[in-house]
Amino acid sequence: MPLGEFTLIERYFGQPAEAMLRSRGDVLLGIGDDAAVLGLPPGRQLVAALDSLVEGRHFPVGSAPRSIGHRALAVNLSDLAAMGAEPAWFLLALTVPAADESFLEPFARGVLELAAVHGVALVGGDTTAGPLSVSVQALGFIEPGQALRRGGGAPGDLLYVSGTPGDSTAGLKLAMQVEAGANLANAQRQYLLDRFHFPEPRVALGRALRGIASACIDVSDGLAADAGKLAAASGCGVTLEVERLPISASLRALAGEGAARLALGGGEDYELCFTVSRAQVPALEAAADNVKCQVTRIGKLDASGDVTVSEYGKRWDFDARGFDHFSSG
Amino acid sequence: MPLGEFTLIERYFGQPAEAMLRSRGDVLLGIGDDAAVLGLPPGRQLVAALDSLVEGRHFPVGSAPRSIGHRALAVNLSDLAAMGAEPAWFLLALTVPAADESFLEPFARGVLELAAVHGVALVGGDTTAGPLSVSVQALGFIEPGQALRRGGGAPGDLLYVSGTPGDSTAGLKLAMQVEAGANLANAQRQYLLDRFHFPEPRVALGRALRGIASACIDVSDGLAADAGKLAAASGCGVTLEVERLPISASLRALAGEGAARLALGGGEDYELCFTVSRAQVPALEAAADNVKCQVTRIGKLDASGDVTVSEYGKRWDFDARGFDHFSSG
Repeated sequence: MPLGEFTLIERYFGQPAEAMLRSRGDVLLGIGDDAAVLGLPPGRQLVAALDSLVEGRHFPVGSAPRSIGHRALAVNLSDLAAMGAEPAWFLLALTVPAADESFLEPFARGVLELAAVHGVALVGGDTTAGPLSVSVQALGFIEPGQALRRGGGAPGDLLYVSGTPGDSTAGLKLAMQVEAGANLANAQRQYLLDRFHFPEPRVALGRALRGIASACIDVSDGLAADAGKLAAASGCGVTLEVERLPISASLRALAGEGAARLALGGGEDYELCFTVSRAQVPALEAAADNVKCQVTRIGKLDASGDVTVSEYGKRWDFDARGFDHFSSG
Repeated sequence: MPLGEFTLIERYFGQPAEAMLRSRGDVLLGIGDDAAVLGLPPGRQLVAALDSLVEGRHFPVGSAPRSIGHRALAVNLSDLAAMGAEPAWFLLALTVPAADESFLEPFARGVLELAAVHGVALVGGDTTAGPLSVSVQALGFIEPGQALRRGGGAPGDLLYVSGTPGDSTAGLKLAMQVEAGANLANAQRQYLLDRFHFPEPRVALGRALRGIASACIDVSDGLAADAGKLAAASGCGVTLEVERLPISASLRALAGEGAARLALGGGEDYELCFTVSRAQVPALEAAADNVKCQVTRIGKLDASGDVTVSEYGKRWDFDARGFDHFSSG
C-alpha cells in the first residue's frame, strides 16, 4: 500500500487516537474510512464548529509545531465552550509543505495532549501538501434548548469575562519581538508566551453557564469587538468599564498603563464573554467557583446600540472593531 | 460593526443559505454564532467528513471559482455517499488571498447550487486571508449499523464501479492543456471538462446500496488504488478486469487505447467503487436502475492480498498506488 495520506495520519495520530476512541463508546467508525460514524446520546442536539489556522495570519511563521497543534484544536473547543456544549469528537485537515517528522511529531502531540485533557477523540482527517494551514471540525452535544447564544442578552444584563484578557496578545508581541519585555521576570515572560501558545478553552465554564448566562461568545477578535458582537446579536448596546478589567500582574508588568488597551483590543484570548441578569449573579458566582474559573464583571448591556468604553464614567476614545482579516482588502 | 469574516460570509452565502435553513426543520442555530446547533433525527447515527481542496494540488491555479466551490462540497458529499449516509448540513472554511467579489460570487454560487441539489444546508463558516484553499465539513446521518464500510468485503465478492471512471482525469488534462484533444467533438470536450469541474457525488446510489453492498469507497485517488484500499481494509486482494471497464465514448475518442489506463489510474472521479456478494446481484441491479445510475462489474475480491490488473486473464503491468501527495516527500 502507498505511503499516502492515510498512512501519514496513522503514523503520527494513530495509536493515541485509537486509545481515545476506545475510551469513548460512541465512535462507531473512526479514522481510515471515507467518513466517521458517531453515536449521539439520545435526547441531545449536535453542536458543530469549523475554524482554520493559517500560517502568518493566526500564528507567526516559525511557531512551535506543538503550539500550532494545540491552538488548532483549542480555538474550536472554545467555540463549543461558548455554546455551553460538551465536546466529543474532532476531525483535522492539515496542509503542510512536506511530510516532515520534525514538524508532524510535535504538532500531533500538541493536538492530542489537549484532546486528552478534554476527552475528545480524533475521528477523521486529511493531509495535503501546500502552504501550512490547519482546519479542525469540532463536534459536541448539548441538551435541547440549552445552547448559549450570542443573541439572548437584554438591556441591564451584566457583562462578564473569564480569566485575564490581553495576556495572549502580550505573549504574541513577545514571541514576535514587537515587545522586548525588559521589565518582566522570567516566569512572567513564560506565562504570557504560554497564554498565546497554549490557550485553555473554557469548556467547564461554558457547561456551568447553561441556564445562567443569557448570552455568550468566545473572545477571539478582541474583548471589546466580541462584546460588541454579543450586544449587536442581542439587539443592545454595551458599555465596558475599564476600571473593572481583570489585568494580570504579568500584563501590567509588560504594558503598564497600556494594559487595559491590550485587554480590550488584543484578541486570541479564547476566554468567554457573557451576560447574566442581576438575579443570576449568585448562581454565577457559585458556578464559577465550582469550576474554579475566575469571572469578572466588566460592564453592562444597555439600549443604546453602541459599544462604549469608559473609565470611572469618562468615555474613552477606543476603536472596538477588532481585528479584521479583510479590513485592508 | 466591522466588515469582517461574518459579514463576508453573510454577503455571499447569507440569503440562499437562510432559505435552505428554513427549508430544513433541523437547523436550530445556523451561521452567525460560535457554532451551529443541529437536531439529529431520533435513532440515527451521525456521519462526518472533512476534506480540503488546495490550489495547485486539487485544482489547477486559475480554475473557475464556480468549479472550486462545487468541488469543495462535492468531494465531501461523495465521502458521505460512500458511507450510504443521507447528507444534511455542512460548514465551510475558506482561505482566499483577498475579499474579491469576482471570485466570491461565483464560488458561493458553485457551493450553493450543489447544496440545493442535495438539500443540504450551510450552517457555519469561516474566512481567512491567505493562499487559496477550501475545507468543507459535511454532516449527515445513517440508520444504526447500516454504514457502508471499506472493510466489509469477502473473497468472491464482485467489484463494481458507478459511472465511467477516467473522464475526470481526461477533463483535467484538457483543462491543463496537457492533452489537445484534437479528435474530440465540441460536446465531447465539454463533457470531459465538466466531469472534472462539476463531479456529481453519488448520494442516491450510496443510499440505495445500504443492505446490498458489502463494502464501499469513493474513487478519489484512482480506481485501482481505491479498489486496493477497499480490498486491504477487507483483508482481501482484488483483480480488476480491464475488458469490463466502462469507458465513455468521449474518453475513448480522446485517449484511444490509453483510455483504460486513465480509467484505472486517473483519480478525482468521485464515483463509488463497491462490492456485493453474488446473491445480491439481482438486488443491486434493481437498486441501481431505481436511482438511474450506471453500475458495472469490473472485478472480484480474492484471497491473494494483492491488486492485480488483467485483460482477458493476461496480467497487466500497472502501478496501482494512485496519486500520493507526499510520495516524493
